Amino acid sequence: MKNKTLNGILLCSLIFIVGFCLHGNLSLYFNLSGIFIVFGGTATAALVSFKFEQLKTAFNMLLNAYKTPAKKKTEVINILIDLSIRSRMEGILSLQEEEDETTVLFLRRALGCLVDGYEIEQIRDIMNTEMYFYRLGRDDSERILRTIADFFPAFGIIGSVVGLITMLGGIGDTSVILQAVPIALTSTLYGLILSNFFFLPFAAHLRERTNQELLLRKIIIEGVISINSEVNPVILKTKLESFLTPAEREDELVSYNKIKERFNI
Amino acid sequence: MKNKTLNGILLCSLIFIVGFCLHGNLSLYFNLSGIFIVFGGTATAALVSFKFEQLKTAFNMLLNAYKTPAKKKTEVINILIDLSIRSRMEGILSLQEEEDETTVLFLRRALGCLVDGYEIEQIRDIMNTEMYFYRLGRDDSERILRTIADFFPAFGIIGSVVGLITMLGGIGDTSVILQAVPIALTSTLYGLILSNFFFLPFAAHLRERTNQELLLRKIIIEGVISINSEVNPVILKTKLESFLTPAEREDELVSYNKIKERFNI
Amino acid sequence: MKNKTLNGILLCSLIFIVGFCLHGNLSLYFNLSGIFIVFGGTATAALVSFKFEQLKTAFNMLLNAYKTPAKKKTEVINILIDLSIRSRMEGILSLQEEEDETTVLFLRRALGCLVDGYEIEQIRDIMNTEMYFYRLGRDDSERILRTIADFFPAFGIIGSVVGLITMLGGIGDTSVILQAVPIALTSTLYGLILSNFFFLPFAAHLRERTNQELLLRKIIIEGVISINSEVNPVILKTKLESFLTPAEREDELVSYNKIKERFNI
Amino acid sequence: MKNKTLNGILLCSLIFIVGFCLHGNLSLYFNLSGIFIVFGGTATAALVSFKFEQLKTAFNMLLNAYKTPAKKKTEVINILIDLSIRSRMEGILSLQEEEDETTVLFLRRALGCLVDGYEIEQIRDIMNTEMYFYRLGRDDSERILRTIADFFPAFGIIGSVVGLITMLGGIGDTSVILQAVPIALTSTLYGLILSNFFFLPFAAHLRERTNQELLLRKIIIEGVISINSEVNPVILKTKLESFLTPAEREDELVSYNKIKERFNI
Amino acid sequence: MKNKTLNGILLCSLIFIVGFCLHGNLSLYFNLSGIFIVFGGTATAALVSFKFEQLKTAFNMLLNAYKTPAKKKTEVINILIDLSIRSRMEGILSLQEEEDETTVLFLRRALGCLVDGYEIEQIRDIMNTEMYFYRLGRDDSERILRTIADFFPAFGIIGSVVGLITMLGGIGDTSVILQAVPIALTSTLYGLILSNFFFLPFAAHLRERTNQELLLRKIIIEGVISINSEVNPVILKTKLESFLTPAEREDELVSYNKIKERFNI
Repeated sequence: MKNKTLNGILLCSLIFIVGFCLHGNLSLYFNLSGIFIVFGGTATAALVSFKFEQLKTAFNMLLNAYKTPAKKKTEVINILIDLSIRSRMEGILSLQEEEDETTVLFLRRALGCLVDGYEIEQIRDIMNTEMYFYRLGRDDSERILRTIADFFPAFGIIGSVVGLITMLGGIGDTSVILQAVPIALTSTLYGLILSNFFFLPFAAHLRERTNQELLLRKIIIEGVISINSEVNPVILKTKLESFLTPAEREDELVSYNKIKERFNI
Repeated sequence: MKNKTLNGILLCSLIFIVGFCLHGNLSLYFNLSGIFIVFGGTATAALVSFKFEQLKTAFNMLLNAYKTPAKKKTEVINILIDLSIRSRMEGILSLQEEEDETTVLFLRRALGCLVDGYEIEQIRDIMNTEMYFYRLGRDDSERILRTIADFFPAFGIIGSVVGLITMLGGIGDTSVILQAVPIALTSTLYGLILSNFFFLPFAAHLRERTNQELLLRKIIIEGVISINSEVNPVILKTKLESFLTPAEREDELVSYNKIKERFNI
Repeated sequence: MKNKTLNGILLCSLIFIVGFCLHGNLSLYFNLSGIFIVFGGTATAALVSFKFEQLKTAFNMLLNAYKTPAKKKTEVINILIDLSIRSRMEGILSLQEEEDETTVLFLRRALGCLVDGYEIEQIRDIMNTEMYFYRLGRDDSERILRTIADFFPAFGIIGSVVGLITMLGGIGDTSVILQAVPIALTSTLYGLILSNFFFLPFAAHLRERTNQELLLRKIIIEGVISINSEVNPVILKTKLESFLTPAEREDELVSYNKIKERFNI
Repeated sequence: MKNKTLNGILLCSLIFIVGFCLHGNLSLYFNLSGIFIVFGGTATAALVSFKFEQLKTAFNMLLNAYKTPAKKKTEVINILIDLSIRSRMEGILSLQEEEDETTVLFLRRALGCLVDGYEIEQIRDIMNTEMYFYRLGRDDSERILRTIADFFPAFGIIGSVVGLITMLGGIGDTSVILQAVPIALTSTLYGLILSNFFFLPFAAHLRERTNQELLLRKIIIEGVISINSEVNPVILKTKLESFLTPAEREDELVSYNKIKERFNI
Repeated sequence: MKNKTLNGILLCSLIFIVGFCLHGNLSLYFNLSGIFIVFGGTATAALVSFKFEQLKTAFNMLLNAYKTPAKKKTEVINILIDLSIRSRMEGILSLQEEEDETTVLFLRRALGCLVDGYEIEQIRDIMNTEMYFYRLGRDDSERILRTIADFFPAFGIIGSVVGLITMLGGIGDTSVILQAVPIALTSTLYGLILSNFFFLPFAAHLRERTNQELLLRKIIIEGVISINSEVNPVILKTKLESFLTPAEREDELVSYNKIKERFNI
């Protein structure tokens, strides 16, 4: 799936770039004053709006969203059913070893609470607070990317106006003036491309990813609480299944058999 | 009704296209660089924002919304009254056969819960969760279509600016420049038409359909719960009627007589 | 009042139209291709977004909003006080005759519930559901009108771009080109006028009317429930008065005297 | 304070107008057709959207907001503490005289409820309903002003397009055409100034004033209820102080001493 | 961190300004009429919308947000743990001395409530009201800055239209006309830069700062209430830690050791 997305992006950007080269001469797109104004202006506006630290966090978060794929819902559900079975067979304290193995940070903390013997209400409280601040941080980063995406076209237009003014001031020859217009427009082009080709999609991607991560966290909270109240693994499975779409449910059934094998039930 | 809509669309698009051809020469609308930039750019932006899988789901959902018409509210209400009568006459387990017959997936699952003997609160919980995730998925798809509809005009303008720059750069003849402007504008035209003629209406249609489907699901939940609490079919009918507009209520009365015949009451 | 509004509209549109004719020649505003594109395009977009049936409902609702004036709040309150007095003097069943007389559909249904002996909670439930679906329908229609108002300027711009392309393609004479621009702009003019002069005001009017109707319904619910709990007519009057502005309250006092006469109290 | 605002407005508008006159000839700004279209069009759109009565109410409300300054929070709090002391010394019925003196309509009605012996819950209910409808009315008026502010620029553009079409149609001389553009643009100027210089600030002002008035009403409700439950004036003062900013609190302390004097405590 | 932000702003604005100077002659950017219209118009609109007092408050708040850095969350948490330990060792009244030392106004008021012996519910009420009005004031100021940022580009366009009209009216020479366009555009430039380079980032910064301050206040409320209910300092630490991101938590551990030293535990 991931590869399809990547191939699609490569193919489509190629088409996009071919569109740029079709009528010729790429040097026409180069406008140093425009580059300075668009990048310098947007960067200043971003730094006046947010602190350097916040911008760095937002970009790291974005990079992570593209580099590490999200855990699949079925995978997390399988881990939870696994843990539920083990907890019923070997006691809740046996989950301590699992705690160190899991790569999902949120699950690790939830298991920690479980092993430490917190009560259901307390676990729910702690995990919900954790989730709330996670969401706050992600929303901040998305807002930063959207704000930057809004600044780019504005500074693109500023660059174009500057281009028109500096290049045409004092010249009275119509043909030269009309010829200069496209050069000045390159700034607008920079602003539009940076906003629509990069930052708006980045912000949208971050938002989709946040939604997925929050859903996973909801599943983990439900699962861990069920383990704590010693719910039957089969009922737990039915419960967690309601988080899946019908298509995903069939996927999950396969792994259920694997669990059966593993625990020799 | 469906045909009226279809005929209307055909007639109106014809008028729209005639408007394009009126002053002549269709080849003027063709601009390869613009097509590459508008389609390539929007596709890339969509793929960077969302995963390939999500886009496919959105388009399938859209196709389905146009292909299969929504069940009518009166139809679903009639089925529910039917089931209520049968349940009182032959017991709740007799609904198992009906479960296999119904083509409404959501109703089938609700009947399954009924036959399995879940309690009212549990059925309401399960069906509401199901509805919540259904809505989440539909909202995602609508948002994807709207985002694409927002990208198209932006890349249309990018294409126009590119057209102006590539075609005019280095030429100093006023008349040639003014003549090139309309050609460059075709990109804007592509973007505007794709957004306003296709994707915004698609998103609006999906939203209307989602609202209808959610209303049907609400009716089904109310009906199934009433069947479970053995409410009198006449009272059930009065209750479900409040979901109908006055005009639709008259429709329904006809079918009520048919039910009477069928069960020889 | 109504006449003032109508006279104002006539006078102001006249001024508006004079502004169009001032500099001459009305034939300049005629652009067949533009008319086709703006109307054809918007109609297609509307039909792809919504079903023919929905559009018809929206336009009927709009027509009704202009044709039949809203009942005045004081009038409805007077009817309710009237009914309250009669109910205390002749018993609740005497309201059955009134039920057939009233022209307010919602009041008729509320009285029906009253006479049928439903309990307060049930009446409130039924009437609130009724109100909820009424509001849903009105909001749908307003959204349809707003969506159409959004499509018009977009297709106006499409028409203008088409005009520029078809008329200028292949011509290299500057003066002809500049002369053609205004003709192409007529499409934009069509789109802007249809949106701002017609559809946006229509949507705003429908919304105002919906707000008024919902307020009337709230008053009716409060009144009918008070009648059912046999509240003293004077207290009922004080209660319903809080729905009126200070100016409207004085109006109402007059009619209170009339009621006194009528019932010889 | 008020004078500073007024002087500021006068000074800044003067600067604004000087900017208009700097390059000369004011007669250039006059465009009869534009005036007709912008004013006639916006007035018609406003009258089709809202009723004449609603528009009159909105303008009266606006005029009042500029003419009569809002009561200061400290002033209202002082009155309430005053009333609280008097009520404890001379009994609640002594407030009847004060009722006639106060110029704050809302306070008068609240005192009326107090003297009439309503219970706390009833007073809260009545005053909240009163406040809810007050807010509804103010929000309506603000929305009307905003809608008009949105119509103005749209009709400004319509006027400009009309200007271009009527003045240029049939003329083929480039220089005349370019010269006519600025004249046509005056309509856009009218629309922009009327919207940004007048109606948007009017709507913003009305909103600020509404927020202030609602806060005053909240203070009055809290105060009157405390008087009814015979709360100690000192505690009442502490309670109402939390509605003040730290700066305003110091203001208030002065008046507290005055109260002490007045009642010889 | 602060220095990085400052250096970044200086560097980026330099790049931005270089972009302006690249093509020459800075005197081209000067347009007296434009300056008068943009500044005079926006100032008038701001003064008609808001009172002079409100504008002054908003600018003071903005200045403060840039001058005094926000307290760090870990710092505030350390103070609270400190106070908790001291309260358990020396009794709650010992906090009175601390009250005078702290520079955080909100904490001082909270400690005041603590020492005065208010109950938990009362403290929560008082502090929440305080927080609510704090937020109201900050939101007002942010809205004022955003409104001004919206006025600037509008008056920039007004200035450009005025420039076109005054400079071109009566002149029929094409080359002069085209040459005048860039000069008129400077007004638009002023409006865009003032909005995007200054006021939008200012408003965004104020909002970020408000969010931070509100979070600090939430931490203080939780902490003070825990101190009042004599919660164990270790549990308090765990509780307050959930307000920190994982990275910040490590920071905090260091200071925990310092506390141990200080109190010789």
